[in-house]
Amino acid sequence: MTAVNDAAPAPGARDVTLLVLDAEPPPRLGSLTGRVRVLHGDEATFARRLPEADAVLVWDFLSDAVRRAWPGPGARPRWVHTASAGVDHLMCPELTASDTVVTNARGVFETPIAEYVAGLVLAAAKDFRGTDEAQRGRRWRHRETRRVAGTRAVVVGAGPVGRAVAGTLKGLGVKVALTGRTARAGVHGPEDLLPLLAGADWVVAAAPLTGTTRGMFDARAFGAMSPSAYFINVGRGQLVVEEDLLAALRRRWTGGAALDVFEREPLPPPDSPLWDAPGLVVSPHTSGDVVGRRDELARQFLELFDLWAAGKPLPNVVDKNVGYVPLHDGTH
Amino acid sequence: MTAVNDAAPAPGARDVTLLVLDAEPPPRLGSLTGRVRVLHGDEATFARRLPEADAVLVWDFLSDAVRRAWPGPGARPRWVHTASAGVDHLMCPELTASDTVVTNARGVFETPIAEYVAGLVLAAAKDFRGTDEAQRGRRWRHRETRRVAGTRAVVVGAGPVGRAVAGTLKGLGVKVALTGRTARAGVHGPEDLLPLLAGADWVVAAAPLTGTTRGMFDARAFGAMSPSAYFINVGRGQLVVEEDLLAALRRRWTGGAALDVFEREPLPPPDSPLWDAPGLVVSPHTSGDVVGRRDELARQFLELFDLWAAGKPLPNVVDKNVGYVPLHDGTH
Repeated sequence: MTAVNDAAPAPGARDVTLLVLDAEPPPRLGSLTGRVRVLHGDEATFARRLPEADAVLVWDFLSDAVRRAWPGPGARPRWVHTASAGVDHLMCPELTASDTVVTNARGVFETPIAEYVAGLVLAAAKDFRGTDEAQRGRRWRHRETRRVAGTRAVVVGAGPVGRAVAGTLKGLGVKVALTGRTARAGVHGPEDLLPLLAGADWVVAAAPLTGTTRGMFDARAFGAMSPSAYFINVGRGQLVVEEDLLAALRRRWTGGAALDVFEREPLPPPDSPLWDAPGLVVSPHTSGDVVGRRDELARQFLELFDLWAAGKPLPNVVDKNVGYVPLHDGTH
Repeated sequence: MTAVNDAAPAPGARDVTLLVLDAEPPPRLGSLTGRVRVLHGDEATFARRLPEADAVLVWDFLSDAVRRAWPGPGARPRWVHTASAGVDHLMCPELTASDTVVTNARGVFETPIAEYVAGLVLAAAKDFRGTDEAQRGRRWRHRETRRVAGTRAVVVGAGPVGRAVAGTLKGLGVKVALTGRTARAGVHGPEDLLPLLAGADWVVAAAPLTGTTRGMFDARAFGAMSPSAYFINVGRGQLVVEEDLLAALRRRWTGGAALDVFEREPLPPPDSPLWDAPGLVVSPHTSGDVVGRRDELARQFLELFDLWAAGKPLPNVVDKNVGYVPLHDGTH
């Protein structure tokens, strides 16, 4: 956090330049009129405008233009804020090594994502897809469903999203184990992962994408799970080796799965075998995207901007070496 | 509760006769062998065997054979237990007026039903049906979904099921109002219902079927709801005037609905217009029917049987005048 004050504009600087990376302009930024020079950059123009920017707002969080354009040591921007929870789309060794501060949208997506995961768990336990199918066929097909209370979940990723997911599942009576990068109070380390997977009814991937987590859900992980386990990915697509998940579903190593994120997004229509993999729910990276979030993201950015312009410490500062915001419990 | 001890068999009675109303035999009843004479009755034979019975176990809770066969004043059975939450299928004026004790399966269905309702709420907020449809068409159709935390629900029915539903929704951050037969601490009376419906995002019917609740969800109730409100019935089909719900859905007076119970069950295939009513989820009276419940219901009955045979007070005694088990808070 010591780098934070270095991120502030020089005292007395009147014309700070903010470069916004966006496909469509964010709401509410009109309130900056007269206080700051706002530039917009898209995939084609971002790199050209970056050398003029004091601060960058990554509004289009699907773009990796920051990573591609980052000029190396001595880059001008002092602060990069991304309107997303993950930062994998913008991090590069040069940005990590720099003293540029990176902040994220912590606080906006956690509850929606936790609700989404709880919905997927309940929908699977209650076989809502089977109900839909029977209804479309006008068939009254009574069957037993599963009780969620008392089942076991492993949530992989002990950051804000993983903790929110764990809290919501616990509220439904699920016994939850959290796993993270290192073992600490309330969090299992990587050494516990395989045995935990073996005992879980629900496995939720909510980790950031880092060198360690990339591809962690592979044949070995799916092989460790119970054949009745249900796998959910709301983190990043690259946490999962999709071919291995496909094989696990086809061989019934895994009871079912729901992916909201993919190695390639949008999932290439129509040739991906994921679309009709047995027992797989495919959703379009929407778990955190509730109505009103654009407004909330813009409001959050403006709050951070005011702090930054005043030279005050920023919240939500990403530890660039690990790729997420450390929790304020002295651990990460 | 004063009638409870009257329900016990005469002291020293060795051959008590238990009549089981069932389509298929319950599990675990073998443990009664040698202690009690067990008769089985189905739709055809139940009435003939009833005069021999000291106790009745209504295992097939879809049957109304008890109501049809009940002989009037002086009936022999001292105790009737139903393996269900609702008792509407067995109550008749003669049984109500008698000193026969009626007990139900309180405690078995509450959590599964509450989970089911939470699942329906989340599935609607997150548009899981839209996701399924897009996936079947191999279309990546990103869209915003709704946050559940902070929305408002009205749960109609302040008995064990309604309270469990309310508790689970509150755990998701939903602001819940409970309504019951009379106003009391934490429960709104019928006079508050229409204004509450007007402000609700979610309306959950979890009331017992009684003279007062029959048909309570009619054109007036649906007309009072917000056009974005979602209606869920996990109580009894006859709480709802299905024609009025159909009209409300077709006119978009109501944002959507899920029925797990119906005026006629099974829902007559394939001619019912409910099967493909716009925005309606049809499920086959399954909300409480989790794996393992038959075993749990049998275990519960055996516990009650032991108490009854020992002349001890029974739990779960139904107030026959109102049709459900009063809560132990001095109100009902």
